[in-house]
Amino acid sequence: MQRALSVSRMTGNRSTFPDWYQAVIREADMAENSPVRGMMIIKPWGYGVWEEIQRDLDRRIKETGHQNAYFPLFIPLSFFAKEAAHVEGFAKEMAVVTHHRLKTVDGQLVVDPEAELEEPLIVRPTSETIIGDAFQRWIKSHRDLPLLINQWANVVRWEMRTRLFLRTSEFLWQEGHTAHADGEDARAETMRMLEVYRDFSETTLAMPVIAGEKPENERFPGAEATFSIEAMMQDGKALQAGTSHYLGQNFAKAQNIRFQSAAETLEYCHTTSWGVSTRLIGGVVMTHGDDDGLRLPPAIAPRQVVVVPMLRDKPEDAEVLRYGEALVKALNATTTLGERTRALLDVRGMRSADKRWEWVRRGAPLIVELGPRDAAGGQVTFMRRDKLRDGDKVISHALARDAFIAAAPGLLADIQAALYAEAKARLTANIRTDIRTFDQLADHFGAAVDEDEGSAFKGWVRAPWSKPTGAALDAVDERLKKLKLTLRNIPLEQSGGAGKCLFTGEDAVEEVLIARAY
Amino acid sequence: MQRALSVSRMTGNRSTFPDWYQAVIREADMAENSPVRGMMIIKPWGYGVWEEIQRDLDRRIKETGHQNAYFPLFIPLSFFAKEAAHVEGFAKEMAVVTHHRLKTVDGQLVVDPEAELEEPLIVRPTSETIIGDAFQRWIKSHRDLPLLINQWANVVRWEMRTRLFLRTSEFLWQEGHTAHADGEDARAETMRMLEVYRDFSETTLAMPVIAGEKPENERFPGAEATFSIEAMMQDGKALQAGTSHYLGQNFAKAQNIRFQSAAETLEYCHTTSWGVSTRLIGGVVMTHGDDDGLRLPPAIAPRQVVVVPMLRDKPEDAEVLRYGEALVKALNATTTLGERTRALLDVRGMRSADKRWEWVRRGAPLIVELGPRDAAGGQVTFMRRDKLRDGDKVISHALARDAFIAAAPGLLADIQAALYAEAKARLTANIRTDIRTFDQLADHFGAAVDEDEGSAFKGWVRAPWSKPTGAALDAVDERLKKLKLTLRNIPLEQSGGAGKCLFTGEDAVEEVLIARAY
Repeated sequence: MQRALSVSRMTGNRSTFPDWYQAVIREADMAENSPVRGMMIIKPWGYGVWEEIQRDLDRRIKETGHQNAYFPLFIPLSFFAKEAAHVEGFAKEMAVVTHHRLKTVDGQLVVDPEAELEEPLIVRPTSETIIGDAFQRWIKSHRDLPLLINQWANVVRWEMRTRLFLRTSEFLWQEGHTAHADGEDARAETMRMLEVYRDFSETTLAMPVIAGEKPENERFPGAEATFSIEAMMQDGKALQAGTSHYLGQNFAKAQNIRFQSAAETLEYCHTTSWGVSTRLIGGVVMTHGDDDGLRLPPAIAPRQVVVVPMLRDKPEDAEVLRYGEALVKALNATTTLGERTRALLDVRGMRSADKRWEWVRRGAPLIVELGPRDAAGGQVTFMRRDKLRDGDKVISHALARDAFIAAAPGLLADIQAALYAEAKARLTANIRTDIRTFDQLADHFGAAVDEDEGSAFKGWVRAPWSKPTGAALDAVDERLKKLKLTLRNIPLEQSGGAGKCLFTGEDAVEEVLIARAY
Repeated sequence: MQRALSVSRMTGNRSTFPDWYQAVIREADMAENSPVRGMMIIKPWGYGVWEEIQRDLDRRIKETGHQNAYFPLFIPLSFFAKEAAHVEGFAKEMAVVTHHRLKTVDGQLVVDPEAELEEPLIVRPTSETIIGDAFQRWIKSHRDLPLLINQWANVVRWEMRTRLFLRTSEFLWQEGHTAHADGEDARAETMRMLEVYRDFSETTLAMPVIAGEKPENERFPGAEATFSIEAMMQDGKALQAGTSHYLGQNFAKAQNIRFQSAAETLEYCHTTSWGVSTRLIGGVVMTHGDDDGLRLPPAIAPRQVVVVPMLRDKPEDAEVLRYGEALVKALNATTTLGERTRALLDVRGMRSADKRWEWVRRGAPLIVELGPRDAAGGQVTFMRRDKLRDGDKVISHALARDAFIAAAPGLLADIQAALYAEAKARLTANIRTDIRTFDQLADHFGAAVDEDEGSAFKGWVRAPWSKPTGAALDAVDERLKKLKLTLRNIPLEQSGGAGKCLFTGEDAVEEVLIARAY
């Protein structure tokens, strides 16, 4: 039996998970490194997944009252200097535009030294400062609030060590930016969008997450509070899959975003920001991939049903093609998960076995193979990508044509649910809550290894937490760093159990999630 | 009667057309200048139009077999040096990234001189070179061809003199890039996408165009042939609304894009590229705007029917709101121009007269005003934005509720057709074909005036053309330049009439379009 991937996963084998991840991305034809250091090319199948993500999330963002707009790619350097904490957090690695012209000198193309900009421009790493500047002009009265804006855009953060989708110097994302009359409304917005992300991640990506608040030293630079959703990858590490920030009045004061209240006083707004990025695709791969390649949740699969006609350059090919075309047309007229079903007849001039394995590696949820016998008998033979094998053997199903068309939407919904259930079971089973001392924590996670080598599957720990701040929190961070561990978040859903803090020995006030992370 | 715009158009009055254009953009709340020189902020209503443009055009691009992908924002400087003609054409004004880090020195945020890049990176002005580099890796065999890729992206071309939507340093666009086994197939692709643009422009934007080939000195740098669609604005000037290029083997040779043919020889591909941008929105404004503001073709109106409830802080408000909500819900369940109708109930806390005029200025195709009497009588009172006035008087229509819901899709289709017909009549009536000498041409267009002042309405001239090349063509260009005129294109549809060339006096072989242009 042909195996789809040249590198198999072997979950828990520390030497291969990162290699497996790269292999899935490569063999599912999702993305590749470009000649520009740290920047990726998102290939059609990977970009198709992003388009489905965008479509679903954009609907949710609009349904919660937000409007899309577009702001400049470049931000004047001086804008970053306005919010002190923001500068501190972001001042490190950014792409800087310093010139606006090239010229030819002795046949060589060079930067024209006479075309130096008066003020350097930063390629946006995030848009709080440039959007805040617009808000300051747009907002006059309490009647202009809340102002609820979202932007789909590319951003650049210079990265030294990159990994496709997970950490790249350029990535695609959406960034929400809102302004409110009071803190209560802004905090409610922050939580509303966190919940949008949680539900989107679980319902659409079939990726279970834990939503919670970040410790203070992990806040977005300039924020009063940062919340995240954290997903467990198949190597047990955590992936921060989305963040929602309550910025208080910090940016409003730095940028003079004020409004006239109903009582005719001039007040600073409270603002929020929130975002998810192409990193989600990396999360999908590490949540659902298997030894045969990618498995895509039907809700984000660019093609949910792929029909591979088995052609042999014989007269009966025409009948197989006709049968396949009619099947795809009928499938495309059905509704799956509230949208029109996305089916494809793959007529490329390749061997049909190669096509089948290509679609297996790409993770198409249902793969149909049609031969002359199927066409003659009105049958459909298909594989479910989520449950491809029994041991080494590929499981093949057969249904009468009309029965398959009627069943396909339900099968796809079932695959969506099965992928979620599998990931949810893994998450639930792998959060330890019985660790009571730092030594036990160190024992559990064992020695840290280099990131590129992957590490043994350890899952997460949920532990009592006394919520230290300032220097005490930094000290905790230092101890964790030596184990390559991080505080992920303080889950919104708390068990209410008491105990002593693992780090300070003081009475715990809540529980915190601890994990290795991407 | 309140007038919507603070600057009225007065078509043909040379002093006000550019002012009128700026006023429409501002008062329709489409876009504004940002603090970054030459870069605009696209506000929600303007961006909503772009989203509708994207949705419709993306469907057409996919229906013709193309797939979307995403390539890096930055292009290494050396990539531009590969295709000599391309360098020459584009080497002038581009944003150059030279550093990748900031640092704080004496409390000041500055560019870190130690973080200079080894090779400067160019912010993409277009992506032929970086996508060609990927094609060179992806294409191995004739079985990989044709390769049909499209990208939605932002691009930057440093502009000294900018105008919202029409010419900005950053703009949004789509750029198609394809590779083919032979010139015939690549030329067919070039023409196919030109036709997609023509039909999209006429059907969706209601903007009639003339499709044709650019003279050789107006070709895209490095192209063998460039085709355009040209639209006539209400000041009589031409707007190049889209281009499609046959690149021959020029880029393939510069970038080594080769394939193994069926005969097992190694051949260079033939490539194409084609694009349209946010400039189209400027074209829509200058095609359909009137003295009351924007008029949007329903196919690209983010909201096709806007319902303004007339609220007076009285008990009957609740009934008006209920009536409006039910009306919008019923409208949203109907189908307009093949898509779900987009209706909105505007419940903002503003005076209803202000709302009405805001939607008039924004160009919502149907504007409904509901008062207690409408709710009680089951009536709908509405305005058609395309035919708003009889003289100074606003024309109001009334229909029974169910009749209005049944009629709305047809009314919207009728508005779409009426806007097209009006623009088509203007285009047809204003192309002179009776000009036979250069002196007549100079007389017709008269003295050139500064661009910012606008010019008297002159329309276009279609004239016999002997197709001079090289120095002879440059001489024609020089003579035209003095009159601020340009050759737009050689229309695909030729009248077949003969005559003497306006410029060379030689026998004409075809006709060329001459116009002032944006």
